[in-house]
This record gives sequence, structure tokens and C-alpha cells, in this order.
Amino acid sequence: MSTIDLRSLYKIQYGMYVISSHNHERINAQIATVVAQVTASPVQIITCISKDTLTHEYIQYSQVLGIAILDQETPLKLIGNFGFKTGRDCDKFINEKYTVGITKCPLLAEHVLVTMEAKVKQQLDVGTHTLFIAELLCSQTIKDGIAMTYEYYHKVIKGKSPKNAPNFQPQN
Amino acid sequence: MSTIDLRSLYKIQYGMYVISSHNHERINAQIATVVAQVTASPVQIITCISKDTLTHEYIQYSQVLGIAILDQETPLKLIGNFGFKTGRDCDKFINEKYTVGITKCPLLAEHVLVTMEAKVKQQLDVGTHTLFIAELLCSQTIKDGIAMTYEYYHKVIKGKSPKNAPNFQPQN
Repeated sequence: MSTIDLRSLYKIQYGMYVISSHNHERINAQIATVVAQVTASPVQIITCISKDTLTHEYIQYSQVLGIAILDQETPLKLIGNFGFKTGRDCDKFINEKYTVGITKCPLLAEHVLVTMEAKVKQQLDVGTHTLFIAELLCSQTIKDGIAMTYEYYHKVIKGKSPKNAPNFQPQN
Repeated sequence: MSTIDLRSLYKIQYGMYVISSHNHERINAQIATVVAQVTASPVQIITCISKDTLTHEYIQYSQVLGIAILDQETPLKLIGNFGFKTGRDCDKFINEKYTVGITKCPLLAEHVLVTMEAKVKQQLDVGTHTLFIAELLCSQTIKDGIAMTYEYYHKVIKGKSPKNAPNFQPQN
């Protein structure tokens, strides 16, 4: 009975988010599926970022992060840009519209329902990834609409996951 | 610009889960909206539990937890039983069908798509709540179906959140 049915893990629910940060000189961002509010007073959110990404490096450096909640209609191309490239090789924002927030994090401006900015309060090493626990500084509704879920991305628009996703499965 | 639009927080995506544990003599469980896989190798999941609940006490005691992923068709009565009562006053499982897993955690058997059991590896105090990071020991698909999302619970079946939910909002 002590077996893990990997297929069953897909029933855990996630959204699709662009997590951004900076190192005071450069900006970067990546796709994440894990964002959650963990306390109401103060409002704290968590995200889970692979240690090998440039965004991870920038969050550790600046201790701030931005979050953009993606619209269900977000084109695969945008997700590919933020999810399957590394900011070490290119400027992911070069062809994207964005604003710069109070934390100096870039906040994606198109295909986005909500943007948030937060200051890291704690971080926890969980192995291949780090959990960042951050206090929400500001959040705003950019437009109404349906948020993209990971299930929709995976099942409806047949999106894939990169190898360093927390929920990567080889048969993906 | 440094304001928090509480309405925007509802665009973060969550599922609906029953988290269970035991103190070697008694069992208990509660509703949680925060469950996520945070690493793939090994498979680790997190959940976020209010410090004032009996399930929190039992997870800290036994260092194991069970997770049941709720079916979209789960009746409000079941959610009310696990989400709005305390195991300090009643046996929440008295009228529910469940099995007992390898960790001795109770695993809800009806209105459930998937059950999982996990062993706590780390815990992080985030204020009113604790984040439990646990290694998955086993998971199984109980039946196929659509998982209930927090958005569906809130918008379609007009469910409420208790005051100690991580994403409680007074206007809920």
C-alpha cells in the first residue's frame, strides 16, 4: 500500500503566476505554480522557487518579489518566454509590457488579472527549491477575468512543465 | 499605490482538502485550502494549518498527516462538519466513512478523488499558522472526477471560510 500514484498528484490545484525580482541592476521573472496566502493578519504569501533559477538568485539578493496572476487567455508564447527560458541568456521582458512597482520589481502588464508585491520575511530550504514567505505590501486588480489554473494549462492548452518545476513528472 | 486590494487575493487558486492526523489515541481532521507539491525528488508537499486547531496539535504530536482531495460534488454538509466544528467538542468522523492509512491517519473515503499520507520533515512558524513540509509516503486515486476548487466552493456553492482560515476576509 505504500506506493505513490504520480497521476493522483495532478489533482492538487494550482494557479499560473509570473514571479519577478531584481538585483538592483537587472530584472527577471519566471513562471511558478505555487502561490498561496498563508496568514490573514498580516497578509503573508508563499511561493516556491527552484534554487537553480536566476529569479531565485534575485529574490535572495533583493528580498522582494512581484507576482502577476495570469489570465486564462494568456498565450502559450508568453508562458514559454517566462517558463522555458533563463534570464541568464536573454532579457525576458524585452518584448513584454510591464510596470515597475514600489519594490522595483517588474510587474507584467498584459494577460494579467492581479499584480502583487511582497517583502520576504522568511525562507525555508526544502531541498531542490526554496519556500519564500513574504509579507504583502500591495496588490491591485488589473482587470476582471478568469485566472489560469495549472489544470487548464496542462489539460486544455496542453502546456508542459520544465524539469525544475516542483511538480515535474517525466511523463509530462 | 501601497495598498492591498483584498478582492484581488481571491484570484489566487486553491483546492479544497481534508487534512487529518492523530495523537495515537484519537483522530481528527479539518478543511484546508493550502496544499502544494514543493519538490519532485523526493515528493514533498506543504500544508498550512492554524495553530489553534486540534489537527495542528495532532500533527505536531504524531508528525504525520493525511490528505483527502475533495470531489467538486462534495456536499456542503461534509465541508461544514470538517471546516466549522472543532474535534475538541465532537468526533468529526462519527458519521463519515473513512479508512485508516499506514500512518494511522484517518482518510476520508467518500466524496474524495485522492488520498495521501505524508511524514513531516520540517515545520515553519509563520505567525497565526504553521507551514508543514512533509514527504509523501503514499498516494492513491480513489475515483476519477473534478476536484473542488476554493473558487468553486466560494462562488458556485456560496461556501464561507472560518475565521482561522489563512485567507479569511471579514466580508466573506
